[in-house]
Amino acid sequence: MASTLNQKEMNGNQSSWDGLLPDLPKGPLSTYRKKASFNWKEMAVFIDGEDIIQLKNRIFSALENDPLFAHHPGEDLCREKYQELTFLRSKRIFEYDFLTQQEAMENPLKIFNIVLSLGMYDWSLSIQLCLHCGVFAGPIMSASKRFGHILKQIYSMEIFGCFALTELSHGTNTKGIRTTATFDPSSQEFIINTPDFEAAKFWVGNMGKHATHAVLYAQLYTPDGQCQGLHSFIVQIRDTKTLLPMPGVMVGDIGKKLGQNGLDNGFAMFHNVRIPKENLLNIAGDVTAEGKYSSSIKEVKERFSAALGSLSSGRIMITGMSMTNLKLALAIAIRFSAVRRQFGPTEDEEIPVLEYQTQQWRLLPYLAAAYALDYFSKSLFENFVEFFAGVLTKQRNQRQADLGREIHALSAASKPLTSWTAQQAAQECREACGGHGYLAMNRLGDIRNDNDPNCTYEGDNNVLLQQTSNYLMSWMNCIRDKAPFESPLGTINFLQDYHHILGWKFTAISVEDCMDSSVPLAAYKWLVCYLLRESDLKMNKEKQAGRSDFEAKNNSQVYHCRSLAIAFIEQTALQRYHDCTHHPSVPAALQPVLRNLSALYGLWSLSKHLALLYQGGYASGEQPGKVIQDAILELCYRLKDDAVALVDVFAPPDFILNSAIGKASGELYKNIWGEILQGNKTLNRASWWAEFCINKPVIGRLRSRL
Amino acid sequence: MASTLNQKEMNGNQSSWDGLLPDLPKGPLSTYRKKASFNWKEMAVFIDGEDIIQLKNRIFSALENDPLFAHHPGEDLCREKYQELTFLRSKRIFEYDFLTQQEAMENPLKIFNIVLSLGMYDWSLSIQLCLHCGVFAGPIMSASKRFGHILKQIYSMEIFGCFALTELSHGTNTKGIRTTATFDPSSQEFIINTPDFEAAKFWVGNMGKHATHAVLYAQLYTPDGQCQGLHSFIVQIRDTKTLLPMPGVMVGDIGKKLGQNGLDNGFAMFHNVRIPKENLLNIAGDVTAEGKYSSSIKEVKERFSAALGSLSSGRIMITGMSMTNLKLALAIAIRFSAVRRQFGPTEDEEIPVLEYQTQQWRLLPYLAAAYALDYFSKSLFENFVEFFAGVLTKQRNQRQADLGREIHALSAASKPLTSWTAQQAAQECREACGGHGYLAMNRLGDIRNDNDPNCTYEGDNNVLLQQTSNYLMSWMNCIRDKAPFESPLGTINFLQDYHHILGWKFTAISVEDCMDSSVPLAAYKWLVCYLLRESDLKMNKEKQAGRSDFEAKNNSQVYHCRSLAIAFIEQTALQRYHDCTHHPSVPAALQPVLRNLSALYGLWSLSKHLALLYQGGYASGEQPGKVIQDAILELCYRLKDDAVALVDVFAPPDFILNSAIGKASGELYKNIWGEILQGNKTLNRASWWAEFCINKPVIGRLRSRL
Repeated sequence: MASTLNQKEMNGNQSSWDGLLPDLPKGPLSTYRKKASFNWKEMAVFIDGEDIIQLKNRIFSALENDPLFAHHPGEDLCREKYQELTFLRSKRIFEYDFLTQQEAMENPLKIFNIVLSLGMYDWSLSIQLCLHCGVFAGPIMSASKRFGHILKQIYSMEIFGCFALTELSHGTNTKGIRTTATFDPSSQEFIINTPDFEAAKFWVGNMGKHATHAVLYAQLYTPDGQCQGLHSFIVQIRDTKTLLPMPGVMVGDIGKKLGQNGLDNGFAMFHNVRIPKENLLNIAGDVTAEGKYSSSIKEVKERFSAALGSLSSGRIMITGMSMTNLKLALAIAIRFSAVRRQFGPTEDEEIPVLEYQTQQWRLLPYLAAAYALDYFSKSLFENFVEFFAGVLTKQRNQRQADLGREIHALSAASKPLTSWTAQQAAQECREACGGHGYLAMNRLGDIRNDNDPNCTYEGDNNVLLQQTSNYLMSWMNCIRDKAPFESPLGTINFLQDYHHILGWKFTAISVEDCMDSSVPLAAYKWLVCYLLRESDLKMNKEKQAGRSDFEAKNNSQVYHCRSLAIAFIEQTALQRYHDCTHHPSVPAALQPVLRNLSALYGLWSLSKHLALLYQGGYASGEQPGKVIQDAILELCYRLKDDAVALVDVFAPPDFILNSAIGKASGELYKNIWGEILQGNKTLNRASWWAEFCINKPVIGRLRSRL
Repeated sequence: MASTLNQKEMNGNQSSWDGLLPDLPKGPLSTYRKKASFNWKEMAVFIDGEDIIQLKNRIFSALENDPLFAHHPGEDLCREKYQELTFLRSKRIFEYDFLTQQEAMENPLKIFNIVLSLGMYDWSLSIQLCLHCGVFAGPIMSASKRFGHILKQIYSMEIFGCFALTELSHGTNTKGIRTTATFDPSSQEFIINTPDFEAAKFWVGNMGKHATHAVLYAQLYTPDGQCQGLHSFIVQIRDTKTLLPMPGVMVGDIGKKLGQNGLDNGFAMFHNVRIPKENLLNIAGDVTAEGKYSSSIKEVKERFSAALGSLSSGRIMITGMSMTNLKLALAIAIRFSAVRRQFGPTEDEEIPVLEYQTQQWRLLPYLAAAYALDYFSKSLFENFVEFFAGVLTKQRNQRQADLGREIHALSAASKPLTSWTAQQAAQECREACGGHGYLAMNRLGDIRNDNDPNCTYEGDNNVLLQQTSNYLMSWMNCIRDKAPFESPLGTINFLQDYHHILGWKFTAISVEDCMDSSVPLAAYKWLVCYLLRESDLKMNKEKQAGRSDFEAKNNSQVYHCRSLAIAFIEQTALQRYHDCTHHPSVPAALQPVLRNLSALYGLWSLSKHLALLYQGGYASGEQPGKVIQDAILELCYRLKDDAVALVDVFAPPDFILNSAIGKASGELYKNIWGEILQGNKTLNRASWWAEFCINKPVIGRLRSRL
């Protein structure tokens, strides 16, 4: 009876998956799809849930059905046109209003998914909206209730915002910002000035052509000539009626970038630009009418922890954006590899390149990374939602502060890990598709170019990793004193066993032993402890040699603190994915493939640290290295028949993926051919034909000039 | 007396360097330049010699002084215009005729340098010319004397050529080519046909818009219906008077690529296109007037070795091209890092980012690679010149055949090594320059995008590496039999000591021990022997398990044959650079820095194989890993003050480098600012301003449509 019920329920589920997600077209990919060990729709529902899938469907089909979002195959879109189109599309998204505030509050993951779904279509569009609705609106929202009218203007697009922090000569070191805001008590205004062009605001997204307002960071000066440090202000930079610059503002576009060219990044210089006193976003401090600066230290400290946590939102978003790029690149490269045939066992028979071990090894670990790290990015977002609820409800307890620090440490390493993984994967996917990967129509170039800044903005990856290692090193005193400790999310709790873990050894002796992610997970825990010890020793050695804190820290990054932060975040991501894939709630049909992915991600990531495992004595002899390598290849082999279905799970519809070789039908040659023939003047004679046919060169004519 | 003479000679040299190379402008980079341990002009003369420097000067100044080569800062050049400009520039190069045939014969390195110097300016231009004068003309030149008139037309640009091998569905596996050439004895013609669009010639450079003739590969069919295999033919594809397609030819442009968009890559389909019998390039065989196929087996075998060697020319050229990209990227990133300041020991003092260990470690090993691998690429070119002289003088002895095989094995791995190194370096340089590296005007994007196909064309890197490992594995019988053996260039001679070398251990115990490249070199020799043994074992194991040769080989690539080929080529490059830097003829003033570069390149490359050193028992305990890592950091530190001078040696003039942050003055902010203000409509209001100001969105208007 129970089993009948279950059967019914399952069928019920099955039919709901079917309605939720359209069947994929038959074609050259069908062979692999039939070989898959699981139902890709069941996997999609398991990962995203029906609600999110419906939201994505709504977004994707709205874009596909709206001519404003049509692609223009074979057309050279100039930058100005692309910027215009991006703005028009942003406006249209406001008209679709995919998510009410109510819905967003009920399930904040939907915000995350909207940003990433729009990014799947085009990052310039998604980031333009993010900057306006999130990065610009965010600080205004958390500053004070007195900005309600501005928020209203933001969400009705009466104004358009940008976030102006970095300057031409200062990016990562924000303390070095040189724009000034001097309080003038006589008029109750701040006067904004740019001392020279090196202090021009620079790189600011949306500022180039259309933002009307900026959240602008400047050094606050009180009338006594005292500098009170970096503060943010709302500054109008363009007239909302004309889009002409406000008096005293010189604002423009910084020019072509390697990617994201729909977004107008800009610069601005300010010459005695006056703004009302109220425009100070009083997060860190305030100024009285007489010009006296006030800031409660306690307040500042609390706010600092809060601010740290809040800064994480950008990095967690970038973590998700990087994972989205990873998924797009893999969808293209794996579908290509399953159809593209080259060489074979006999003269007449060619086999899909996915059948080659080398191709599997190049792509499938990234597929495992996409599953593991995508889960990680969502779990981080959920951590952040918890934290942010505390901010909004003004929680000021120790846990909230600790949570802020922990999330800061996690996001400061998750961004480097995921942006680098996506960047390397995009390059590997490009190469794995050979020449066709180098054709713009197949989109791997745009994915790589648009992902690239994820390595840089919101903090350069290498610099950010120091935040994570600093956090880890801060526990060394507790470890040394054997004092108990824990963190709100528990990511560092295993360090309590530091001394014990350092004694662990690699024990797997066969490939079969390594088929579960518990093996790399244990090795990672040892590795983090080992690198923590080594980093601590190195730092102390540097200090004993008479180096300043600044120098000691700089000289302890390479091979020490930097590796520590990377190992820690990989370990954390793996731990979460291991737990997820081993949870009893995982549908039985999905368990085997998910566990294979977890094991492959763990072993493959770990294999990059293999030398350290030997160096530190965790491993010795030939066995460990060989077993790990063989296990990676075995897992690649086990996953190759699931690979196409695994990318079907996350690949957006063809219209959104927008790649001739990545289409769900797998008809790659027909798709390339069709798109080429759509190209502008593909078959036409070159307009400059007479330069060849009539105006012949006189060989050596200019030699005498040399 | 002798010393006075030497002094005079040195001064004499000194003044000749001074005249040869202009002084660099004073500015923010002067500090580092003064700290350099050597004279950069002396280094330039040591590396290139006066002759080559003069040639480069001639080329660079001709381009700078000719308005046709002017840059257009801030302009969006559409693809059609870029293609036109590239063709006009190609034509102009014919008019400059930088090198007479006589000069080229006397010093073939000059050909190499012209290609690379033009590439420093723009790869589309350089490759367009290479394809015409080299890749197209080459097979015609070596085929038979009967094509003299065609060669004349090539060098007077009466015709323009392309090399049509790859098809839409076949690249790497050239045996799978499906275009046919059927001999018709009645008209003494070949009839060229494309069976379907998947067999369209595809990716062919110059074919898109302007080539008039192709060297075309097709399966030769004799009238008896027999397929005689792949042969090449001269086929006219466009009318030279009109640039319109020849009857029966459908030819066009394949569309936008990730880079090299000045080059018109194309496709072509053939429908009963008739060409005279004489147009068969009878390298492998010929057809009688009656349609009987003739080919002497002996001839074919010899020709095959010769052809193998000849194929190397493309890969050696790409090796040089990749090194050129590496140099361009480093010139930009290192000059930027020496001027860009961020953070510092005190609040007020910021230090150049080059002073940070992390930044040194990210960039300086690539600088060492640029020196070591550039030397290697030139030495390979010289090997090829020796080999080609043998081809031209019809040498048919065993040595010539052996030389062909050896050069083939070397070039099949040097291309992967250098193209990947340049690709990774371009990405690292982009990131090391932060946001500014992402600005198109700074050129790191173009360098990365233009270098990318070096990983793919002339054979996919991963597939090519098999050629090298096959060559190495072919010596296993000799090794097992302890029979003596050697190769013409001696690159595999050390394998004679295989059994002995496998017993070696890592013996350095201090950083000081590792300051010479002999340490990594010894480790590399062990590594090659170890991987050779492991690859051989793995292959035998696969075969014993019943796998076919095809399967066994495929399953022995990852972690085995692939690693073997990489270790071997790194070892070979390091050996050559070690010998070069330790030669008594190296000027004393240059020795220390050159040896540091050699040691750094060796240790840094080796460090990527550290796990294998442990796994195979060459290293054990903590010491080796730590010593190698510390030595890398120590060498980075020793080289940091030389870094700017080291890039001055190979950086082309500012006009050619064409990067605002890479200019020799180091005035990076002024240069960026100046270039932005040159931009098209930088400060103008967006043409679409009314879309923001007047046509406001109605929020949620389209929600009901969802």
